[in-house]
Amino acid sequence: MNSDVLPESVNKLIEEFAKLPSIGPKTAERLVFYLLKSEDSISLGEAALTLKDGIVNCQSCQNFSTETICKICQNPNRSDSLLCVVSQPLDIVAIEKTGLYKGKYHVLHGVISPVDGIGPDELEIDSLLSRIEKHKPEEIILATNPNLEGETTALYILRKLQDSDIQVTKLAHGLPMGGDLEYADQMTLGRALDNRQVF
Amino acid sequence: MNSDVLPESVNKLIEEFAKLPSIGPKTAERLVFYLLKSEDSISLGEAALTLKDGIVNCQSCQNFSTETICKICQNPNRSDSLLCVVSQPLDIVAIEKTGLYKGKYHVLHGVISPVDGIGPDELEIDSLLSRIEKHKPEEIILATNPNLEGETTALYILRKLQDSDIQVTKLAHGLPMGGDLEYADQMTLGRALDNRQVF
Repeated sequence: MNSDVLPESVNKLIEEFAKLPSIGPKTAERLVFYLLKSEDSISLGEAALTLKDGIVNCQSCQNFSTETICKICQNPNRSDSLLCVVSQPLDIVAIEKTGLYKGKYHVLHGVISPVDGIGPDELEIDSLLSRIEKHKPEEIILATNPNLEGETTALYILRKLQDSDIQVTKLAHGLPMGGDLEYADQMTLGRALDNRQVF
Repeated sequence: MNSDVLPESVNKLIEEFAKLPSIGPKTAERLVFYLLKSEDSISLGEAALTLKDGIVNCQSCQNFSTETICKICQNPNRSDSLLCVVSQPLDIVAIEKTGLYKGKYHVLHGVISPVDGIGPDELEIDSLLSRIEKHKPEEIILATNPNLEGETTALYILRKLQDSDIQVTKLAHGLPMGGDLEYADQMTLGRALDNRQVF
């Protein structure tokens, strides 16, 4: 960035945008110059300033919420017998979009990752276990990501639950819908073969 | 977006991000959830709110500036005999990064695009012509983008200048540096052949 060429306020916002994941310095520049020409910079600024206003973690599921107990946990139409454990709030958004899940959630707020110094104590695992103790669900879906950290975290929780009679499940692995067989990676195709289903 | 699931302030910022070019709803979600976990949402908000504070168009080159006459136009080390005409301020940033240009600029703030209802009068062409009348440069580089609208705009300005004795040039077209010949599109390769240079 040639800071001499651009006004300071422009450089400052480029800097802020470039801190965000997946936004490099060139994209940051493009976004700021777009905002300079549009009417949206004020509403964006206000939305960012008030983003965290009144947001707390739900005392039951630990998801972001504006109430002590979030709307999903409060919803009487959602089953208490099914509990889906996810690593981050964004995963709840993704699952809710399917419209197929009618149970409750629990957000771990991370995954076990020794490289990053994150152990089980840094995650919402204790709150999960004490929640289960109070209200035992029939089934727990461990919906962490299908990668090393996600599976390590799932295995850790599985071990903590092995003395209970709760059914523990995980999401199915296989070919993504609409995907091309020839473009699937070996791991995915291998899982799809292993878990093949009767037509 | 399942607005029932997310706090309103979160939905609002997702909406604001999704207005920006090249940011879709999924990316907007990811950015907002990143900000929820980071400390950067306030500084981003303040930077966006103050983005346009004190920013005006330079009375000489029309680039964004915090002063009536911008730093480049004021710089006595930059030649007045060379004038580079660009369509938007971001193009100045790109050219300045090369470190090779020591002349002045003029920003058109757009290109002629009948489809979008933008004619020559909507652009900073009059200010360019009256600027040239006052201080005649030796050379004008028409550095609009090498596409239909950019070349139409350049041709329009060229015609306005044909009675003057100013040398009018354009940027060289050819293979991009580090590019692969086999991946170059036909137009680019054609131009590179036409404009081949002696080794």
